[in-house]
Amino acid sequence: MRDVAVIGVGMQKWGELWAKSARDIFVESALLAMDDAGVDKIDSMYVGCMAPGVFDAQEHLGSLMADYLGQRNIPSTRVESACASGGLAFRMAYMDVASGMHDIVLAGGVEKMTDISGSDATHALATAADMKWEGVSGVTFPGLYAMMAVAHMEKYGTTREQLAHVAVKNHDNGSMNSRAQFPMKITVDGVINSVKVADPLNILDCSPITDGAAAAILVPADMVKKFKKPGVKVTGSGHATDTIALHDREDLTTLAAVNAAAEQAYKMAGKGPSDMDFVEVHDCFTIAEIIVSESLGLFERGKGGPAAESGETSLTGRMPINPSGGLKSKGHPVGATGIAQVVEITEQLRGEGGPRQVKNARVALAQNMGGSGGSSVVHILEVM
Amino acid sequence: MRDVAVIGVGMQKWGELWAKSARDIFVESALLAMDDAGVDKIDSMYVGCMAPGVFDAQEHLGSLMADYLGQRNIPSTRVESACASGGLAFRMAYMDVASGMHDIVLAGGVEKMTDISGSDATHALATAADMKWEGVSGVTFPGLYAMMAVAHMEKYGTTREQLAHVAVKNHDNGSMNSRAQFPMKITVDGVINSVKVADPLNILDCSPITDGAAAAILVPADMVKKFKKPGVKVTGSGHATDTIALHDREDLTTLAAVNAAAEQAYKMAGKGPSDMDFVEVHDCFTIAEIIVSESLGLFERGKGGPAAESGETSLTGRMPINPSGGLKSKGHPVGATGIAQVVEITEQLRGEGGPRQVKNARVALAQNMGGSGGSSVVHILEVM
Repeated sequence: MRDVAVIGVGMQKWGELWAKSARDIFVESALLAMDDAGVDKIDSMYVGCMAPGVFDAQEHLGSLMADYLGQRNIPSTRVESACASGGLAFRMAYMDVASGMHDIVLAGGVEKMTDISGSDATHALATAADMKWEGVSGVTFPGLYAMMAVAHMEKYGTTREQLAHVAVKNHDNGSMNSRAQFPMKITVDGVINSVKVADPLNILDCSPITDGAAAAILVPADMVKKFKKPGVKVTGSGHATDTIALHDREDLTTLAAVNAAAEQAYKMAGKGPSDMDFVEVHDCFTIAEIIVSESLGLFERGKGGPAAESGETSLTGRMPINPSGGLKSKGHPVGATGIAQVVEITEQLRGEGGPRQVKNARVALAQNMGGSGGSSVVHILEVM
Repeated sequence: MRDVAVIGVGMQKWGELWAKSARDIFVESALLAMDDAGVDKIDSMYVGCMAPGVFDAQEHLGSLMADYLGQRNIPSTRVESACASGGLAFRMAYMDVASGMHDIVLAGGVEKMTDISGSDATHALATAADMKWEGVSGVTFPGLYAMMAVAHMEKYGTTREQLAHVAVKNHDNGSMNSRAQFPMKITVDGVINSVKVADPLNILDCSPITDGAAAAILVPADMVKKFKKPGVKVTGSGHATDTIALHDREDLTTLAAVNAAAEQAYKMAGKGPSDMDFVEVHDCFTIAEIIVSESLGLFERGKGGPAAESGETSLTGRMPINPSGGLKSKGHPVGATGIAQVVEITEQLRGEGGPRQVKNARVALAQNMGGSGGSSVVHILEVM
């Protein structure tokens, strides 16, 4: 397999983009990435998108987006793994280049979520859970993550305040990200007193409904010097699955798919958790960031909450988590999120992090997750 | 890239499988393929499915199907390209093995289409067309293919009778396929006098709504001798796209994506159309088989209709098309169709075609298509 590098990334400001269609926002981000790389022609592309048929009555996005991007006739593949669709599109693009099949490959992600009602969006998202066992009982994602939070609090003593610290830290970071949907700072008291969604999770523990897209251009590492920006090497790639229904898991306080995907990526990169200079993880709910940080091996089990509270995960802490602002502040257009993590890491490793630059960042990890952890994709990227 | 071979295939009898869920039928076919290969553990899998969120309120099929197949935690990816989702899942599995990433990879396809009303199914299928330009105007797939038929008849003199011959031939073949949804024989008069759907296409020009799944196991070619059945080598793989909206194409009488995907596959295999002993193509409507047969280079432009009429494409003709019965007789569970083509070809090349065995078949081609030709995937398989 060939070594692979990212040589361009792009995304627009995320939010409720009512004046733009899914194809508009995908093309907008893809053109930013192509311009960043200095390419006007790609050989192949992958589109991560979770549920465009439900959100927008439009499937067949691989072809549609290639056409609207001015790349008609190229091979273009849509991949889906719920909220990990973007990370999985990146992995497929990685494999396409690594295999020798194509040289210049675009990995993009998109989701247009705000053109339907909030309850319809909740239904669309619930198709990532097990509809025959979970959805049919009326449980949706805030409820599923609330059960995980209760289990984690019970087993490890994780507190309501620790959950809030995750949200506060991510909004602090997001306040320095001009592309974040909700760049305002918030407080621990503000989170704790915000409206209840599913006990113990309040509205400020939850990532928002967002329209957005993101894109990255991958090439063989030995071609990097032909392009205008420094390359960022993909040194590890992992992908694993788990039962999508919570009731079938042995332990609600850890995430087996995250753990397995991370092990694959660490092994491929020849690195471990302590080698990471920062990470971008899937904080769809505050409890998710805590459990993920443990399942990645960044903290011992039960220590993710205290780490958030003590500031260890802040931008200047020992292990910065989500310098971009994460899903919580930046927004969570589900199919795009995994690619946006790569956008943040690429810019940080090129020293383009601006006010939220992680000092001396040379190695970072992206962790994207589907449903309540039914799938996870992990990538490790490094300065070349 | 490593050479790749198919060492097991499986599918159940297709039809209106009301007693079974999507997960039931996927697992059923996947287990048949694993049993055919003699494996009980796979390293990775791909699930082709077009619109499970719309048909069945269930996304996240990669993880769900891996779990229900007893393969929890493996990497499992759903891919979608409308009705070419199955063919594309096969191509991703091919790339996964070819790259060296994994050794034993399952490519499966599934669609559960009959649990919703006919009009809802028509809506679900219409998400493969351009909803903002085509769907919004009320045009669905019979109408789109009818426009292509009218253009082909106008330009080349293709006749109503020639269209009917495609359906009659495919039902003749399907009458010998115990897994076909509609194995009855039909007549040219019967097709011409069947109820009109979208002029000039009648109900017997259209493939049906079907529940079904299919699966294939791929391994590196040099591992074939470890398994119980003879391997069938994948010597060519092609994938291309086109505008999904018909109005943006220069010519409605040919299919650019089919032509481009075929050229890639022929080039990789070092073979041309005349080297094929038979082909399985995407006859979602009778006119589709005629145009595809021309776009693949099997017949000159405008000669696909006469070839069907003269018997050249029958089981004993010069270029047998769809010995399985095709989408028309076998059924068309959209995400599964591309894999079912590989099932037929693998069995034929192993000499297991039974009453519909193509004599001395050593090289065959599978062509799967999304929407009205907005995407196409072509594979060439050969006896090892």
